[in-house]
Amino acid sequence: MDWKAEIDRAARRIDGHTVVTPVMRTGALWDAEVELKLEHMQHTASFKARGAFNTLIASDVPEGGVVAASGGNHGAAVAYAARTLGHKAQIFVPEIAGPSKIALIERTGADLTVVPGEYADALAMAERYEAERGAMQVHAYDAPLTVAGQGTCLREWETQGLEADTVLIAVGGGGLIGGALAWAQATGSARKIVAVEPMTCNALRSALDKGGPVDVPVSGVAANALGARKIGQICYDLASAQGIPSVEVPDGAIIEAQKALWQAHRILVEPAGACALAALQWGAYKPEPGEKVAVLICGANPAPDPLAGS
Amino acid sequence: MDWKAEIDRAARRIDGHTVVTPVMRTGALWDAEVELKLEHMQHTASFKARGAFNTLIASDVPEGGVVAASGGNHGAAVAYAARTLGHKAQIFVPEIAGPSKIALIERTGADLTVVPGEYADALAMAERYEAERGAMQVHAYDAPLTVAGQGTCLREWETQGLEADTVLIAVGGGGLIGGALAWAQATGSARKIVAVEPMTCNALRSALDKGGPVDVPVSGVAANALGARKIGQICYDLASAQGIPSVEVPDGAIIEAQKALWQAHRILVEPAGACALAALQWGAYKPEPGEKVAVLICGANPAPDPLAGS
Repeated sequence: MDWKAEIDRAARRIDGHTVVTPVMRTGALWDAEVELKLEHMQHTASFKARGAFNTLIASDVPEGGVVAASGGNHGAAVAYAARTLGHKAQIFVPEIAGPSKIALIERTGADLTVVPGEYADALAMAERYEAERGAMQVHAYDAPLTVAGQGTCLREWETQGLEADTVLIAVGGGGLIGGALAWAQATGSARKIVAVEPMTCNALRSALDKGGPVDVPVSGVAANALGARKIGQICYDLASAQGIPSVEVPDGAIIEAQKALWQAHRILVEPAGACALAALQWGAYKPEPGEKVAVLICGANPAPDPLAGS
Repeated sequence: MDWKAEIDRAARRIDGHTVVTPVMRTGALWDAEVELKLEHMQHTASFKARGAFNTLIASDVPEGGVVAASGGNHGAAVAYAARTLGHKAQIFVPEIAGPSKIALIERTGADLTVVPGEYADALAMAERYEAERGAMQVHAYDAPLTVAGQGTCLREWETQGLEADTVLIAVGGGGLIGGALAWAQATGSARKIVAVEPMTCNALRSALDKGGPVDVPVSGVAANALGARKIGQICYDLASAQGIPSVEVPDGAIIEAQKALWQAHRILVEPAGACALAALQWGAYKPEPGEKVAVLICGANPAPDPLAGS
C-alpha cells in the first residue's frame, strides 16, 4: 500500500468537509510543555469524521446506503457524513454507547438500532444488514480508506507546526494510530508514535504479546470508544513492523486526566479522549529528559452530556 | 496613552505566564465561515489572566498583597496570577458568582469573601480592604495595565493569522474590548470591532446613548461575568471616539449560542463566552455580503461545573 498517496488523496477528498482542528502548547498539564491537537473539536466530536468522509467520497455508495457498527463515535461520524453527502445511513450501536452518543446519532437523522451487548454484537448485526440489504459497510477501523482518512490527522498536525519527538495516541481498534503509523512510515518520519490503551481494553498490547490479533475482554470507563475486542489487522501490521512502544493505563488515571484537561483548559472530553494524556500524567510513558511530547485529544462525547437538559 | 507601546510591553511581561490560546475556522456555526479565538482555554478559563499578570508583574506589589473584586473570572485570574508570582491575594465576589467560580478561586488558595449582592457591592468591600490593609487593588477593567493586558489578546490573534474584517467581542465592564480598541487604534487597523452586550447588562450601549458612563441595572444569564453596573471610562473613551457598532442580544439567544458551540465543536462555555456569537446567530449584527467575521470566545466557567461531582 502506498500510504503516502492514499493519505494525500484522503486529505484532498475530505478538505472542506472536516474541521482543521486547532493545536496548542501548554505547560499546565505536565512537567514540561506538551503539544496538543484538539481533534475532539472535529465534526461529531471525534477524528472518526475523517475516515467516514474519505470512505464515502471515495466509494460508489449503493442505493441501499451505508451501514456502520459503532461504539458511538464512528456511527455518529458515518451518519453525519452520509447526511452531508446525501446518502441513507443505518447505524448499529451497542447499548454501552450510552445516551449522549445515541442522541448525537439521532440528531443526524440516521436510522439507529441499539443492540444489547458490546461492539462485536453490533458489528455482527451490521454485517447481516450489509448482506441482506445491499448496503455498503463502513468499517470503524480495519479498512484502508478508514485508516487513510484517520491518517490525515497527523498529516494536518505536521502542517500546523508539530515539533514533538513523540506523539501519544489512544488505541481502540487501531484506526487513528494506524493512520498515524502509516503516515509516519510513508514519509520516513523520525517521530516516535506511542500507543496508549486502557488496561481493560488492551487489544493492541495483547496482539503484540501474542504475535497477532486476538480476542480480548473489554470493560471500563473508555470501553464504548476504545473497547474493540480485536485490534485491526492493518494497525497490527504497522505497529508490529515499526516496533512501537505500547503502554497501558488504569481507569483511575484516565478519569484524572479527564479532570485535568477540564480544569486546566476547559477541554471537556470523554474518557477515551483523555487516555493518551493519562499515560504521561500517570507515568505509563516516561519521556527521556528533553524529549518533546505531543498528545492527540481524540474524542469528546461524554456522558452525561452537560447541556442535554438545557 | 501610547497604547501600542503599552500592549507590546504587556505582551512581553505575560509571555510564558499565559496560554497562547488556539484559533480555528468553522463553517458549522453560521452561514459563512467564522474565525474563532478560543480564549476560554486561557488559565482560569477567561482572558482575565492577561490583565492580571500584566498588572502584577508591572507593579511593586506591597506586603499586604493584592485585592480584587470580581464577578468571578477576574478574581480567579488575580488569585492565580498572585499565587504564580508569590503574592498574597484577597478576593471579594458577589454571591451571583455562583459555586463554580467560587470553587475555582478557592482552588488557587486565595482568601475569598463572598459578598451578598452584585459586583458593585463586592467592589465597595475591595476598596475598603485596600484602604485598611494597604493591599494593591487590581481593577477588573478600568485601569491602563488591565486594559493593556487584555489588549494582548487581539495582538496575539493577529500574529496567528486573523483575517476577518470584523471582530465581535462581548462587553461587560469593557476591559477586553477596551484592549482590542486600544490595539486597533494604535496600530491603525482597518478592522472593525463590534461590541456585543446582553440586553440586561448593557452598560456600554447606555453610556454611548447618554454621552458618558451611567449606572445601569444588571441581570440575566451572563450577569456574573458581563454585569458591570457602569462601563469603564477607558473603554467608553475608546469606543465613543471610534464610533464602533454596539449591539444587544437577549438571554435566549445567548443560551442558544452556548448550545451551538457545544454541539458543533465541544466548546463548553459560560453564557458570557457565547454572547458575541449570539449577535451573529440571532442577527443582532448582520455582516455585509462577503464581510469576514471573527468571534472572540472569552470565558468558560459554567455553572454547574460538569465535572464538579467527579
